[in-house]
Amino acid sequence: MSQQLVVGIDIGGTNTKFGVVDRRGNILCDGRMLTNQYEDVNDFLDELHQHLSVLIEQAGGMENIKGIGVGAPNGNYYTGNIEYAPNLRWKGIVPLASLLEQKFGVPTVLTNDANAAALGELIYGAARGMKDFIVITLGTGVGSGIVANGQLIYGHDGFAGELGHCIVIPDGRPHPGTGALGSLEAYASATGVTASALEFLATRPDTPSILREHSKEEINSKVIYEAAMKGDPLATEVYEFTGKILGEALANFVMFSSPEAIILFGGLTKAGDLIMKPVREHMEKNVLPIFQNKVKLLFSELKESDAAILGASALAWEMKD
Amino acid sequence: MSQQLVVGIDIGGTNTKFGVVDRRGNILCDGRMLTNQYEDVNDFLDELHQHLSVLIEQAGGMENIKGIGVGAPNGNYYTGNIEYAPNLRWKGIVPLASLLEQKFGVPTVLTNDANAAALGELIYGAARGMKDFIVITLGTGVGSGIVANGQLIYGHDGFAGELGHCIVIPDGRPHPGTGALGSLEAYASATGVTASALEFLATRPDTPSILREHSKEEINSKVIYEAAMKGDPLATEVYEFTGKILGEALANFVMFSSPEAIILFGGLTKAGDLIMKPVREHMEKNVLPIFQNKVKLLFSELKESDAAILGASALAWEMKD
Repeated sequence: MSQQLVVGIDIGGTNTKFGVVDRRGNILCDGRMLTNQYEDVNDFLDELHQHLSVLIEQAGGMENIKGIGVGAPNGNYYTGNIEYAPNLRWKGIVPLASLLEQKFGVPTVLTNDANAAALGELIYGAARGMKDFIVITLGTGVGSGIVANGQLIYGHDGFAGELGHCIVIPDGRPHPGTGALGSLEAYASATGVTASALEFLATRPDTPSILREHSKEEINSKVIYEAAMKGDPLATEVYEFTGKILGEALANFVMFSSPEAIILFGGLTKAGDLIMKPVREHMEKNVLPIFQNKVKLLFSELKESDAAILGASALAWEMKD
Repeated sequence: MSQQLVVGIDIGGTNTKFGVVDRRGNILCDGRMLTNQYEDVNDFLDELHQHLSVLIEQAGGMENIKGIGVGAPNGNYYTGNIEYAPNLRWKGIVPLASLLEQKFGVPTVLTNDANAAALGELIYGAARGMKDFIVITLGTGVGSGIVANGQLIYGHDGFAGELGHCIVIPDGRPHPGTGALGSLEAYASATGVTASALEFLATRPDTPSILREHSKEEINSKVIYEAAMKGDPLATEVYEFTGKILGEALANFVMFSSPEAIILFGGLTKAGDLIMKPVREHMEKNVLPIFQNKVKLLFSELKESDAAILGASALAWEMKD
């Protein structure tokens, strides 16, 4: 019989989310558990197995399940391993896909969360029918998944698509995690936006801002967003600055793979035109004429709360039988 | 019968080179003609047809020819057209592939010269057996061809792989052709190296250099290369500067597609370690730890005089039957 369902598992530093998904991206049932409460990955998997078994039973049993897709930090598509993930307690190399295959008896594929997000857009979202596009996730960090010729680009080792770590300002702002100077993630993430606001508050004393009523510790991307929505001049400048840097970076990505669309996902996109106007302007300004006014800038069509499970589940549909 | 030969045609701004090539990359016979002496592309094609017919006859006749591959500026793989090539006399859109198919009666494929170079390395050269690599051509300009998952990345419109036009120094040196500020080509091309030397001669009066014995007009990439080979301090600094910028750019390319190798081709590579040492150093310094000491930096294995014909001919082997 044809198996009509897949399982998607998204392993994050804090939560692990999982669900049973159909071809159209309907999540039939889902659940979550804490990731880092388990020092031993086998205890984590036992617990996950219990939770998922209940859901799968609800969905008609294992015979309906084609396979399992997993999105995980530092997830390697080729090996099925999580490799040296800095935000997880399981150190070194964890053969997660094969452990899950043993537990559930169905094919299991794994990649990082941004690659999974790109497949989610391809199968269920804004990129349906496209063969060439890039997804950029703008959250705590900046992730990316690149599809070219209809396939996700994994690179020779499974680690392609780390666009957040491209250097966009040589010798620029240090990245708090990697130490690299001037990477995209140091500017276009929630952390980056906060750093820009603190910088502007210190260096632009003449720009009025309600952010000055907050202590340094209170400044975060949410507070800045709310200020910008009220027309706060300094918060607006922060979005313009962030949008310029992101737009310049996107221009370089366009020159690489000439995508039909770039799909943006995550917290920063909530600012709408405030960020998208400078992004579009500086992207267009920096591409060659042959690319101008061709690349669609889209927002993700997946509900943010569902996107992680959907992305992971999309991997299982893409599996070769 | 199995057709054992293909035709490669490389259309450049000055010369058009063509040859008959076997599976192993042996050029059985070849020739050349001037490109821009023909105002009408049909006159150009008549002449090309005459030349090639003689060569094909020598190689056993049309029945041995599987197809024709063409490398051309602004060559679009999907349409087979040359589109608005600034260096050619034929303006607008020229349906070159279909015109050649009509003349010769065999399938004809066209792409730009840097993409053709990448296929040349894949079929006959340093990238044999690789599925993920990038070729960077460092000549008068900087071109690139990107292979991922074993396929050339053409992008949604056929124009992917314009890495020479990536912005590497925001608001940096203007590109003489495009006007863009700080593109890789403005630094890492023959023209860019010359510009750097002239800049250093003006701004570093204390650095001794035999280049100071030349007039401005005499300074070019060849003179700078010869000075550097003699240990000239200023010329050496020019290569270090160029290598740093190129290495930083390559780091970003690695973060994009995680290639097994980057293959460098063209004039600048003649400087050997003088440029490759800083390239390697700054590439490694700017990639994430997961990419460090993994990416091979290779020189092209194709003889420079043969590479254009071989690259174009490789397209014809890659054609789907």
